[in-house]
Amino acid sequence: MRTREEYLSIVESTLDEVLPKEDERPAALSAAMRWAVGTGGKRIRPMICLAAAEAVGGRAEDARYPAAAVELLHNYTLVHDDLPAMDGDEIRRGKASVWARFGEANGILAGDALQALAFATAARAPRNVPGIVAALGRRGVGVVAGQVEDLVRETSANGAKVLPADTVDFVYEHKTADLFMAAATMGGLAGGGDAESVEALRRFALNLGLAFQYEDDLLDGDSPWGRGETERRAADSTNAAVSALAELKGGAEFLREIARSLIGRKT
Amino acid sequence: MRTREEYLSIVESTLDEVLPKEDERPAALSAAMRWAVGTGGKRIRPMICLAAAEAVGGRAEDARYPAAAVELLHNYTLVHDDLPAMDGDEIRRGKASVWARFGEANGILAGDALQALAFATAARAPRNVPGIVAALGRRGVGVVAGQVEDLVRETSANGAKVLPADTVDFVYEHKTADLFMAAATMGGLAGGGDAESVEALRRFALNLGLAFQYEDDLLDGDSPWGRGETERRAADSTNAAVSALAELKGGAEFLREIARSLIGRKT
Repeated sequence: MRTREEYLSIVESTLDEVLPKEDERPAALSAAMRWAVGTGGKRIRPMICLAAAEAVGGRAEDARYPAAAVELLHNYTLVHDDLPAMDGDEIRRGKASVWARFGEANGILAGDALQALAFATAARAPRNVPGIVAALGRRGVGVVAGQVEDLVRETSANGAKVLPADTVDFVYEHKTADLFMAAATMGGLAGGGDAESVEALRRFALNLGLAFQYEDDLLDGDSPWGRGETERRAADSTNAAVSALAELKGGAEFLREIARSLIGRKT
Repeated sequence: MRTREEYLSIVESTLDEVLPKEDERPAALSAAMRWAVGTGGKRIRPMICLAAAEAVGGRAEDARYPAAAVELLHNYTLVHDDLPAMDGDEIRRGKASVWARFGEANGILAGDALQALAFATAARAPRNVPGIVAALGRRGVGVVAGQVEDLVRETSANGAKVLPADTVDFVYEHKTADLFMAAATMGGLAGGGDAESVEALRRFALNLGLAFQYEDDLLDGDSPWGRGETERRAADSTNAAVSALAELKGGAEFLREIARSLIGRKT
């Protein structure tokens, strides 16, 4: 296992390779796409993808295009979430959101182009491209489904907008866990993993995504089921994620480190 | 070669197979996706895709998933073009546009899900999936680039909004010809065509798309180069499309019929 900086460098250099150059025509689109993807983020999803390739005995480099693909897809969802018709956020990661800087039409279009580029990039994996693209496509539909359900909100006793409890599971699985699952299964396939290993990676990522959301609720002191039930769910999901790792043949230290950094975080 | 109705039936049944059922959760998304794709259209792009598979000696059925994929992708671009931040159209094909019926946020999200579904569907082709997805991804970025350039318009002498002449070629190639090229090259690859045949199909589709646009200008009596130059360009593109077909090994009658119906149309 290499340092986190070395893995991050694979992700950043691949993103830079596949994104259009700043002056590529039309320049407004190229600039907006690069603005959306930015630099210096944690790149959690692509890191999971690289780590998954190693966890099945492959090389991190085998998964560099799928890793860049899931980050491109994640970033298009953020660009569209920020639009005035959605959350209307003018700030993202401390700078202007894409629509606030480039206009609303370019915000829609830059997101659209990032999604197309994500799939073109995933198709450059060294093996198992049909399975890799199918996974990204399925989870790409799923993340939108989670977003549509998330728009259905109720007003709580104190006037806050909250999700109906029976909708929370669906939203957590799709809005968050779907792209974790895409990252893990694409990495496993790109690294040459067999069906059992890829399924173990999927279960790892599903439970990691759920644990991440429950921890978020505990940090915010705001949970649809109350603190005790949320703590139980967080512990169950964490345990399920850790036991899925035990089924993997390659070195899972990097996946374990990512899980620790996500689940044990204090902010 | 079968009847046009038989080819159309392959397209419609494949679209129905891959789209979420009306009641699939979230129902608002499933309904919006089906509303966007509709039925009864001419389905020009998927027809080109099926015909291209036959033109390289393969079967139309080999290209049914790529054919559905290019239609899904085309329809997402229409859904997003209609949004208030873009053209603001409330009517599409004689019925309410997706955002007018399901709300603006659902319009954005249904388009996003259709694009993801397009790639998941293309990945189900029976062979050459990396090349097929790469083609759809590249042209999917290109069609957005054409749309971004198309937003740059000038005001003509009579007050109409027109494209600067030096931008027209870029917009025609990308807004229209890109998805024709995606359809033709994906069909050729799905049908098992060699590199030379796929390249001939690409040239056919590029020139068909350009001829289609020039004919449009002539029908509208509105062209950036004047009538004589536009007629010359339309004839050159038509001839280039027809001579590309001569290089194909399979039966190109269906492609020739599609070309005739598009180029010779009177409305």
